[in-house]
Amino acid sequence: MTEYLYGRWPVLESLRAGRRTFEQLLLAEGLDEKGILDTIQDAARQREIKIRRVPRRVIDDLSKNANNQGVALRVGVYPYVDLDAIVKAAADRGESPFLLVLDLLKDPQNVGALLRTADSVGVHGVLLQERRGVDVTAAVVSASSGAVEHLNVAIVTNLVTAMRRLKEENVWLAGLDIGPDTMTLDQADLNRPLALVLGSEGEGLRRLVRETCDLRITLPMRGHVSSLNVATAGSVALYAAWQARGWQGWTPPGA
Amino acid sequence: MTEYLYGRWPVLESLRAGRRTFEQLLLAEGLDEKGILDTIQDAARQREIKIRRVPRRVIDDLSKNANNQGVALRVGVYPYVDLDAIVKAAADRGESPFLLVLDLLKDPQNVGALLRTADSVGVHGVLLQERRGVDVTAAVVSASSGAVEHLNVAIVTNLVTAMRRLKEENVWLAGLDIGPDTMTLDQADLNRPLALVLGSEGEGLRRLVRETCDLRITLPMRGHVSSLNVATAGSVALYAAWQARGWQGWTPPGA
Repeated sequence: MTEYLYGRWPVLESLRAGRRTFEQLLLAEGLDEKGILDTIQDAARQREIKIRRVPRRVIDDLSKNANNQGVALRVGVYPYVDLDAIVKAAADRGESPFLLVLDLLKDPQNVGALLRTADSVGVHGVLLQERRGVDVTAAVVSASSGAVEHLNVAIVTNLVTAMRRLKEENVWLAGLDIGPDTMTLDQADLNRPLALVLGSEGEGLRRLVRETCDLRITLPMRGHVSSLNVATAGSVALYAAWQARGWQGWTPPGA
Repeated sequence: MTEYLYGRWPVLESLRAGRRTFEQLLLAEGLDEKGILDTIQDAARQREIKIRRVPRRVIDDLSKNANNQGVALRVGVYPYVDLDAIVKAAADRGESPFLLVLDLLKDPQNVGALLRTADSVGVHGVLLQERRGVDVTAAVVSASSGAVEHLNVAIVTNLVTAMRRLKEENVWLAGLDIGPDTMTLDQADLNRPLALVLGSEGEGLRRLVRETCDLRITLPMRGHVSSLNVATAGSVALYAAWQARGWQGWTPPGA
């Protein structure tokens, strides 16, 4: 099975990551070739991928009229990993596990934005619930600016079973939630083996997912609109967790 | 001058805030009236606003085919305030000033998302650069889920002059930036009179805006994709600042 990725950064990051099979790079006729377009073509040549010029509308069709910037890449399926590979990725880096778990999020924009932040804070992997949630489509790749091409993502048939597996690895499951009996970000000790669990837009965490969490953390809100977008809330929580880990693995600029 | 707001939450929050003139509420024919739609109609009746049923395509046209959920509200211009009103809003609450300053952001989605977070952390006001940046359009109202209808927003002709005014009020200007000579969020003392300054997508802060800042803070990143969306980065910084203030003004659930 093949699909088309689109957009300059998503296509370039996919080529850089080099984890898919690549079939063909499509560029819109008349596109200016300087800067990042040059870089994309160099990356394609290095991997011996055929480059074709096509009318812009071909790329518009292939990307379902999304913002494609005149660039599309025909690729094989997304390289999902399994849960063991994620646990091993943490061990290989000599770090305590740091994961993101998404329970039935529906909006590719939100999922993409969260995966971009997850890459930025260096999570070892991401768990998605199979079928009823979003999987890694081209829209998600684009919304993540291509970051997901570098991430370890596992799709599991039963999220609660996977969460229990993580508990056996001594990973703490922190559900982002609202309501009483929650702790604020600064009250919880996030500097430990940790999986941040986010629920769907609107409905939040499913009951059994919530009950499987070891702690429930909350983001205070004092505004008139009493909810935050899940991608915003999740990004704030991911950064709080990474800060609690002392920005582990970060190289300051100029250092 | 009038315009149309659209979408259920944006329209409801505008009616709740009650700061504009309201001319007419349009609902798509055949729309299910339960739940939030009832609430919207009640709010409209309370303000004696005429409610009209129109074909869905009328609302699609008025909202330029944005996701309008079958609801549009004809309103007067957005009620901008001036900088003095923002400084006074802080004093009236007995709090040290907490502002968001946006330097030439271009994407209504980003501006809307930032305004939603700004409302959530309780900023006293937001400064926008006139003309060359985004102003509070219907698209921004929607992207903020209506939060901007409750916020104090000032548009200034010269952002640097306004920033100097804030300095005279002893407000510290913290620019979100990358590169050397920046401090991480946790190194900076954010528990003080503070304005968080964000630069445009792609280009960041303009030189003079950057030089007018008292400190430059940075968000560490360790991923493969070496940038964060400005709305994500700004939201993380706004929450860090509010956390440094001990979640001032927050009522925990159940308290």
